[in-house]
Amino acid sequence: MAESEKEAALPPKEEFSDWYNELLWMAEIMDVRYPVKGLYVWYPFGFAIRRSTYNIIREILDNSGHQETLFPLLIPENEFMKEAEHIKGFENEVYWVTHGGKDSLDIPLALRPTSETAIYPMYKMWVRSHADFPIKLYQIVNTFRYETKHTRPLIRLREITSFKEAHTVHATWEDAEAQVKEAVELYTEIYRRLAVPVLRSRRPDWDKFPGADYTDAIDAMMPDGRTLQIGTVHHLGDNFAKTFDIKYEAPDGEQRYAHQTCYGISERSIAATISIHGDDKGLVLPPEIAPVQVVIIPIIFKKGAEEVLAACRDVQERLKKTGVKVEIDASDLRPGAKYYRWEMKGVPLRLEIGPRDLENNVAVSVRRDTGEKEQIPLPEIETGVLQKFEAIQNSLYEKAKVGLESRIFDCTELEEVKEKIQKGVATIPWCGKKECGLAMEDRIGAGILGIPLTPRGKGKEKCPVCGAETETRVYVARTY
Amino acid sequence: MAESEKEAALPPKEEFSDWYNELLWMAEIMDVRYPVKGLYVWYPFGFAIRRSTYNIIREILDNSGHQETLFPLLIPENEFMKEAEHIKGFENEVYWVTHGGKDSLDIPLALRPTSETAIYPMYKMWVRSHADFPIKLYQIVNTFRYETKHTRPLIRLREITSFKEAHTVHATWEDAEAQVKEAVELYTEIYRRLAVPVLRSRRPDWDKFPGADYTDAIDAMMPDGRTLQIGTVHHLGDNFAKTFDIKYEAPDGEQRYAHQTCYGISERSIAATISIHGDDKGLVLPPEIAPVQVVIIPIIFKKGAEEVLAACRDVQERLKKTGVKVEIDASDLRPGAKYYRWEMKGVPLRLEIGPRDLENNVAVSVRRDTGEKEQIPLPEIETGVLQKFEAIQNSLYEKAKVGLESRIFDCTELEEVKEKIQKGVATIPWCGKKECGLAMEDRIGAGILGIPLTPRGKGKEKCPVCGAETETRVYVARTY
Repeated sequence: MAESEKEAALPPKEEFSDWYNELLWMAEIMDVRYPVKGLYVWYPFGFAIRRSTYNIIREILDNSGHQETLFPLLIPENEFMKEAEHIKGFENEVYWVTHGGKDSLDIPLALRPTSETAIYPMYKMWVRSHADFPIKLYQIVNTFRYETKHTRPLIRLREITSFKEAHTVHATWEDAEAQVKEAVELYTEIYRRLAVPVLRSRRPDWDKFPGADYTDAIDAMMPDGRTLQIGTVHHLGDNFAKTFDIKYEAPDGEQRYAHQTCYGISERSIAATISIHGDDKGLVLPPEIAPVQVVIIPIIFKKGAEEVLAACRDVQERLKKTGVKVEIDASDLRPGAKYYRWEMKGVPLRLEIGPRDLENNVAVSVRRDTGEKEQIPLPEIETGVLQKFEAIQNSLYEKAKVGLESRIFDCTELEEVKEKIQKGVATIPWCGKKECGLAMEDRIGAGILGIPLTPRGKGKEKCPVCGAETETRVYVARTY
Repeated sequence: MAESEKEAALPPKEEFSDWYNELLWMAEIMDVRYPVKGLYVWYPFGFAIRRSTYNIIREILDNSGHQETLFPLLIPENEFMKEAEHIKGFENEVYWVTHGGKDSLDIPLALRPTSETAIYPMYKMWVRSHADFPIKLYQIVNTFRYETKHTRPLIRLREITSFKEAHTVHATWEDAEAQVKEAVELYTEIYRRLAVPVLRSRRPDWDKFPGADYTDAIDAMMPDGRTLQIGTVHHLGDNFAKTFDIKYEAPDGEQRYAHQTCYGISERSIAATISIHGDDKGLVLPPEIAPVQVVIIPIIFKKGAEEVLAACRDVQERLKKTGVKVEIDASDLRPGAKYYRWEMKGVPLRLEIGPRDLENNVAVSVRRDTGEKEQIPLPEIETGVLQKFEAIQNSLYEKAKVGLESRIFDCTELEEVKEKIQKGVATIPWCGKKECGLAMEDRIGAGILGIPLTPRGKGKEKCPVCGAETETRVYVARTY
């Protein structure tokens, strides 16, 4: 589709916001020209990344005892309005369907902003006995927020097209707490597969999910030093169980309220992956989610062209049998233009095969992430390519991890925090009192991200607001 | 979830409507208790069938050059209202979003009933040159119809949760016609994988898709003799191209309007599969879409229980490695209750292993579709099971095909048609004139389904209304 329009150069990644917008367009991830603000179109290439990313999510959830399901999009107003905190959190963001055909509906229907109020009336009927627990269901759906802020593809949307939300039910508060921990680990594992290192923290109380006891969150650090929330896990206590009357029969025969958790991941997972790994030439994709994992470029001269093409096709066939997604670019473009095109698309490995390589019985492999060139003997092309994939995956993760850790700054003064959060995340002691937290946020001009789940305390220190002793440090960050 | 509530017997399949509703509940396909009419909840078991069914659809589309994509759900009123015929066809069925939070929206947003008006404004920008063709995109999405008729799970819905819609663009009318033919073949292939034989016909002009030149359709015959439309393929000519200004540069340098097709399949595919194959005991699933393909029942006596369980686990492991979805039912239920439970869920093959079987080094296989018992030597259990799957798949299809063909009745009189359509589909000569068609429908009290794509004419016959000679016969049927 109009490839020719996209030959312009990408802005340098340093200009992150421009780079991001142009990359989504030039690499054919999203088209932003849909005629409604905050709604975007997935190009087939972008959707192929989405498909493999969500296959990873499905695999990890299925293997940990979750089951996929699907609930309706439309939530009747009376159900939606049942949980007071929840309403407060969402009422300004909900789209309402008020008409069917030319009829005005008796009960307006909300487009789900999240599905607690669609799912929990069913859980009321489904939950009977302690023997039913744990119930661990998830769905991958579109959800809606009437965003009045600046929207941005994959990051801030009016239609979140790819919301994976899990909803679990347990007997006790402690069982639900254990589920929260499992979910945080599963999300970490998902992001490890995307080569994305994460920050894990407990959100301050004033920033938790409306209706939750607490919220643990996963954030990525974007190239501009701001954090992007890419996963949240909520301990719902028995708050929703009381609202929706979800009770179970305990072993002693008593009826008790259930305890619940819910946790979500959206296409922000793809925004983070793209942003963290990409470079001035375009996408850099972890092999597992690359729609094209290997591109073979035949190096053609007049003499021996047929042999070269035959060798390329042979390599393609063999790699396909190994399950590798591989293309040959036998187009008439000059090699430089071919490189440009496939580098933009983030193809992890390029194989060049020319007459001299055939004489030596090798292919020249070029890694997208490092540019590193190496010969792979043709008889070992399958294992050679798979080893490269593993090396690329590990190296992407390690590089990103170094990048993340080098931008976490332990501070003691609020002034220092103000400076450091221009480059990344700051940590600062906090006594835990809400008024001190809010005062800090006010003075810094940025929010407390949360208390790291792996403590970053350095022994006894002082809260910079009230001076009280504390062993707790919190993350402070500019956020998306 | 509350298995115990579901021990009641299924109504006999002869009472199809009751059987269908009870089966969806007892086999845990859909829960109909969601508090909005026409919206239903997928149970995890039902969703697993949905997942494998749509994997087949994806595979067949991907392998024929289609690419998956995703467009927004919300369509602005001004785009939706562009195509006059299209509006007439849908205006009474569209849900409208009129509010975001507490704000009234400037432009109301339609929930897509189908996505022509969401996709074609983008096609206007994407289509440039004849070299771009064919464009063959599809998406699997939720769509919405404000149904005022009686709703029914999987069949007549207010939220169609699983609408696969393809939208293609071509240079000429003939290219689009060829695409319609390809789509009909692909749909036939999809249904062959579901062991569902189909009727293929061209809808009469008054029953085509609003805005199309013509509509070819695929119908299944349900157990009560009514047909269920389970796939439609529309030749859009250049009608939408003119409305949405979709032009391409032809090889001669001229700007010409493109020609388009679109075609869709929904979760009715699952309704048909379940209805056609199921029996008085519950689901009967083609192996490829069964969430559990094999259930192993250990036949336990006091003596040798450990050996039997070990053998069952060994068989399970080996089958898993072959890619078979296999469960062991080692619960305390009596064998009869286990059979009941897994038969209800449509598990294609049951393997029973007891001490005597171990002595003979065999498992006893029991087919869900025929009840046929046979010994499979344990050393050959993998190939034995896969052969059974193939036999089951073929036999389901053949049985359904005989069932379909035995209920197509060639008639010459309208009175005969009236009688035969109580049992199935009738064919009757038709001269092709609209007034004769409508008169026939009126006298029969049922609709013309369409002109069979494979002609069923019997030489020169007479139109029962006007007496004109014709070689065309049409299907007449009671429809869902």
